Amino acid sequence: MGYTELDQLAVNTIRVLAVDATTKANSGHPGAPMGLAPAAHVLFNKFMNFNPKNPKWLNRDRFVLSNGHGCMLQYALLHLFGYALSMDDLKSFRQIDSITPGHPESHDTPGIEVTTGPLGQGFSNAVGLAMAQAHTAAIFNKSGYDLINNYTYCIFGDGCAMEGIASEAASTAGHLQLGNLICIYDDNHISIDGDTKIAFTEDVLKRFEAYGWHTLWVQDGDHDLQGIEEAIQKAKDIKDRPSVIKVTTTIGFGSKLQGTGGVHGNPLKTDDAQNVKKSFGFDPDKSFVVPQEVYDLYGKHSSEGAAKEAEWNALLGKYAAEHKAEYDDLIRRQSGKLPEGWEKNLPTYKPTDPAVASRKLSEAVLEKIHNAIPELLSGSADLTGSNNTRWKNAVDFQPPVLNIGDWSGRYIRYGVREHAMGAIMNGLAAYGTVIPAGGTFLNFVSYAAGAVRLSALSRVRVIHVATHDSIGLGEDGPTHQPIETLTHFRALPNCMVWRPADGNETSAAYYSALTAQHTPTIMALTRQNLPHLQHSTVEDALKGGYVAEEAKNADITIVSTGSEVGICIEAAAYLKKNHNVTARVVSMPCWEVFDAQPQNYRLQVFPDGIPCLSVEVLSPMGWERYSHEQFGMNRFGASGPYKEVYKKFGFTPEGISERAITTINIYKGENVRSRVNHEPRAKPEN
Amino acid sequence: MGYTELDQLAVNTIRVLAVDATTKANSGHPGAPMGLAPAAHVLFNKFMNFNPKNPKWLNRDRFVLSNGHGCMLQYALLHLFGYALSMDDLKSFRQIDSITPGHPESHDTPGIEVTTGPLGQGFSNAVGLAMAQAHTAAIFNKSGYDLINNYTYCIFGDGCAMEGIASEAASTAGHLQLGNLICIYDDNHISIDGDTKIAFTEDVLKRFEAYGWHTLWVQDGDHDLQGIEEAIQKAKDIKDRPSVIKVTTTIGFGSKLQGTGGVHGNPLKTDDAQNVKKSFGFDPDKSFVVPQEVYDLYGKHSSEGAAKEAEWNALLGKYAAEHKAEYDDLIRRQSGKLPEGWEKNLPTYKPTDPAVASRKLSEAVLEKIHNAIPELLSGSADLTGSNNTRWKNAVDFQPPVLNIGDWSGRYIRYGVREHAMGAIMNGLAAYGTVIPAGGTFLNFVSYAAGAVRLSALSRVRVIHVATHDSIGLGEDGPTHQPIETLTHFRALPNCMVWRPADGNETSAAYYSALTAQHTPTIMALTRQNLPHLQHSTVEDALKGGYVAEEAKNADITIVSTGSEVGICIEAAAYLKKNHNVTARVVSMPCWEVFDAQPQNYRLQVFPDGIPCLSVEVLSPMGWERYSHEQFGMNRFGASGPYKEVYKKFGFTPEGISERAITTINIYKGENVRSRVNHEPRAKPEN
Ligand SMILES: [Ca+2]
Ligand SMILES: [Ca+2]
Repeated sequence: MGYTELDQLAVNTIRVLAVDATTKANSGHPGAPMGLAPAAHVLFNKFMNFNPKNPKWLNRDRFVLSNGHGCMLQYALLHLFGYALSMDDLKSFRQIDSITPGHPESHDTPGIEVTTGPLGQGFSNAVGLAMAQAHTAAIFNKSGYDLINNYTYCIFGDGCAMEGIASEAASTAGHLQLGNLICIYDDNHISIDGDTKIAFTEDVLKRFEAYGWHTLWVQDGDHDLQGIEEAIQKAKDIKDRPSVIKVTTTIGFGSKLQGTGGVHGNPLKTDDAQNVKKSFGFDPDKSFVVPQEVYDLYGKHSSEGAAKEAEWNALLGKYAAEHKAEYDDLIRRQSGKLPEGWEKNLPTYKPTDPAVASRKLSEAVLEKIHNAIPELLSGSADLTGSNNTRWKNAVDFQPPVLNIGDWSGRYIRYGVREHAMGAIMNGLAAYGTVIPAGGTFLNFVSYAAGAVRLSALSRVRVIHVATHDSIGLGEDGPTHQPIETLTHFRALPNCMVWRPADGNETSAAYYSALTAQHTPTIMALTRQNLPHLQHSTVEDALKGGYVAEEAKNADITIVSTGSEVGICIEAAAYLKKNHNVTARVVSMPCWEVFDAQPQNYRLQVFPDGIPCLSVEVLSPMGWERYSHEQFGMNRFGASGPYKEVYKKFGFTPEGISERAITTINIYKGENVRSRVNHEPRAKPEN
Repeated sequence: MGYTELDQLAVNTIRVLAVDATTKANSGHPGAPMGLAPAAHVLFNKFMNFNPKNPKWLNRDRFVLSNGHGCMLQYALLHLFGYALSMDDLKSFRQIDSITPGHPESHDTPGIEVTTGPLGQGFSNAVGLAMAQAHTAAIFNKSGYDLINNYTYCIFGDGCAMEGIASEAASTAGHLQLGNLICIYDDNHISIDGDTKIAFTEDVLKRFEAYGWHTLWVQDGDHDLQGIEEAIQKAKDIKDRPSVIKVTTTIGFGSKLQGTGGVHGNPLKTDDAQNVKKSFGFDPDKSFVVPQEVYDLYGKHSSEGAAKEAEWNALLGKYAAEHKAEYDDLIRRQSGKLPEGWEKNLPTYKPTDPAVASRKLSEAVLEKIHNAIPELLSGSADLTGSNNTRWKNAVDFQPPVLNIGDWSGRYIRYGVREHAMGAIMNGLAAYGTVIPAGGTFLNFVSYAAGAVRLSALSRVRVIHVATHDSIGLGEDGPTHQPIETLTHFRALPNCMVWRPADGNETSAAYYSALTAQHTPTIMALTRQNLPHLQHSTVEDALKGGYVAEEAKNADITIVSTGSEVGICIEAAAYLKKNHNVTARVVSMPCWEVFDAQPQNYRLQVFPDGIPCLSVEVLSPMGWERYSHEQFGMNRFGASGPYKEVYKKFGFTPEGISERAITTINIYKGENVRSRVNHEPRAKPEN
């Protein structure tokens, strides 16, 4: 639509800001912003609806920079369009405590939707954002109220295109026919190692066609603003498929090193930077300069965005009058708070209730709460019958045309795509109106480690329903039996790992996971049946650890989690009967929650004076924090019926008793100090 | 050619054995073996060269069952062809300590090339096996000696096809034009959740075409033995591309539940099993029956295989005479032993040598040893210049037609495909003639967690060169700064994590990694420069932990790794000067190696009587095993110049000193017991 010199000036302003910021930081990636400036200019200025004064406007178009290392592109745009990101913030690029870190972080910076940088994640988040839009629209839009109709735009590069997680997500998006998703592939033939011809020679568009995507190609992405606009418009017009637009660009456009790997991850040399500025009509001796007419151009678009939001708010006002319940629900969902009284639906259990696998206890929770929490979207990576993640009358989230579900469906069939599931859930959560829960075997949450880490870093409420949580899965054997997995995720900051021992603890796990607005949860659940503990309560379990079997003048504390707590309680009885040894048993379903309890409570649970033995059929690593001796798995498991596997490794009342006696003997006559009895001083400052 | 009733009988024998074994185990997956029996029969009996009496014959064709849950297919074949896998072994399917575990494990079972089950891994291993073949052939084949010319065959299912790791590996194989790789895609339209139409509707063959593969389709994989044979033959005839043959099959063929998810992961009901046997002409009341003519048919093929090996051995004998050096090298490589004296090439350093980043120290090692260890194949997931994994005169491993390397090249460009890199390295190592080392940032080894786990489980020598190992990478920020990563891999059994502090320790790390024939290693290396320690030696470092700075009458032990050891030594000086506190400093580059030292040595390093503070800029989890107080990162890092990041979190001589004094005060007046002073009793029996 009649691109002028002003458009070109805007494009070049973005390029020069990327040069200046990386130069000042002496670090960062100028190449991608310089190559992508034309596409980003057209996308942001011609297509995207947003209001920089309210970056959280629900119906805004979402933008994801999956090649997050190119974030100076995004920071420049946010600044120029008038988000709360100042010129000083650009000058603090990649500096401590700035809001312009080396890769974009959603919790740091207004206008950043999701945290990207680890390649492939952003692309997959975008699929999640688009799914959330489709679902939210299906739930809330009414005749005359096209309330939720935003698009999700994503830019990704060769690196993202090579990552398996993006392949998984692209296949998913193709299956789901997400017409609201438009991705721009920055085809610049360069990755860090140089020309992509050394490792990446596939036909990317053909691959996306195979997934069911609509594909387009803009051959001169450096100059053809009109072509970029036409492609995006065509992509918007295609409603029944996601679109990918290959935009062939020159990395580091304008630099002497343009089109080479040299401009990917290093600031330009001084003379090159000056040269770039000169050739773009900027003063080579000045930095961080924005022509007023560029501010004005973008300011105009932002004003239009603000007006659109105002219009939308008016529509929402009418909606509130006509559809009160839906309106209230939509507002509440955005607050992150759950419906009042939802927790009354959590099942509780008596010791006399029959033994049940915790994966089934989890299913019972979902069955009871899914009506009360309409924003809960469950799903599984092709293990529905094993994860027990689907409530009985669930409808699948599917494109209606397939006749096997619809967009309002709350059960997602992720396919055998654990990593994409993790990242799609991050995108779903980031949209702001749904809470995703997804199932796989605990061992295969490791496939999604990259995404789980970003759940934690970007502080989203995502629930991993991780069943088959140990050697207790039995016959599938060592390839499927996690050993290191809980240690891994317990070591991850801002991630809760729950391993409930029975029904009440499972309900507590869900309470904790669902009310943790800014923390993801991994719920480790058994395949095998577990008895309900004599003294468990939801309330006690919500302290993360509690005394499951108290005993006066005890000789030892035995601490355990999940499926081993019941066996430890049996061991305590065995010790009393056979050895006249008194053991107390602590159940500790969630370390992170326990660690947050007051010190006096923690010392009640782990008192001074007697040693503590920890028992868990997983890596013992980390248990040294609570116990003096550790009984765990320092090797891989075995394939066989689970009771025999437990026996093989000694996780029986007898085996545990033996180790308890050894523990007592080691510390006999010593003034034993509780492992939790130390000042929590030697920690880093936050 | 000319398939008879005997062929059909053999096919049905495989099917019935799969039914019997899963029935007896009351567990397992009959569906895939029943559907795949025709394709497997043709592949094994018409094409594959192997000698069951010597499953390790170097030039055997390799077979990988990527959908490892269908392993009864493979176990049945191994039994029928005469491998050391008896009928009793089949009867012990999925039982404790059998050689027929729930998923195939290479170290358990003769004839199993790689450990599979976690989906997508086997497919990627197959790519590695094919790469190793191409490389080994390029190195050892001579005019008149086509010594190494085996094929790699792989069967994979819908689950593998959905996994991102397989997409990465397929793209890699297409780029590399691996004509020696033939994959059979079991297109049965069923995965665990049921019909693949609910989540997986892409055009798989078109996707593989996009990767550059040759594609074929056998439409009636249940009956068309001739068609299967023709397809495999065509695939063999195409030499410049890998081939994928889509074989459309009926899962659980013969069962009443055939073609449904019901037959995927559960044994058949009794009447159904009887029915299957009846319809295949077997006695419904008998189990584990093999008609003698089937044994004879397969025995004939095995004899031909044995004859082929004999012929090959004769050729090898001539080769030994004509190409003595190459012959010796080939034999030595297969033994797993390194060339004598190779370790003399490891660089050593004096304290006065200039400070260097350990990623550069690693590069120096590779530069010095690559000539001495010709089987070492380095590479990187598109971070060559950052990982410093490439020696100066390295040749890329590439198809010669691209003119950017050749098959003899020893540097692999993995692309941005960390997970596939991990699994390809497992395949490379499994071939038996090469040692793979691959680089990425430590944080992104997590993307490969599924593959690293299988390196450890299947006991292969694989080296992960994991640079940028902490907040010390600086500006890239929290998305790239590992926190939980070392804890994760330290908790993984049979995996060595090395985090060297200086040059001598880096040499030790390589010595340890390269001589650990059955253990993978993750080498955590810095981006930032490190001083060489005053007292480090390769010999001391090879104990995993040692006293880097001893002090008499010390008040405290400070233990650390990698980049923090030097800072801790500065802290000790600071403590002496400013607080008259005496600290001794322990460097502990590898826990796994240290834990294997005698108890008296470990107590020398961590003596009773004084408390210990651990310092590492990563999750402190696990350090409780050695230290009384832990100074680490309980949160994510920050984007900024690395010295400022270290300062922000207190990892400075002052900050460490402060925590050392706190530690001393906590334990003042106590009879402090060393954390390593306990009987290593409370462990599971192996
Ligand atoms: Ca690129
Ligand atoms: Ca299938």
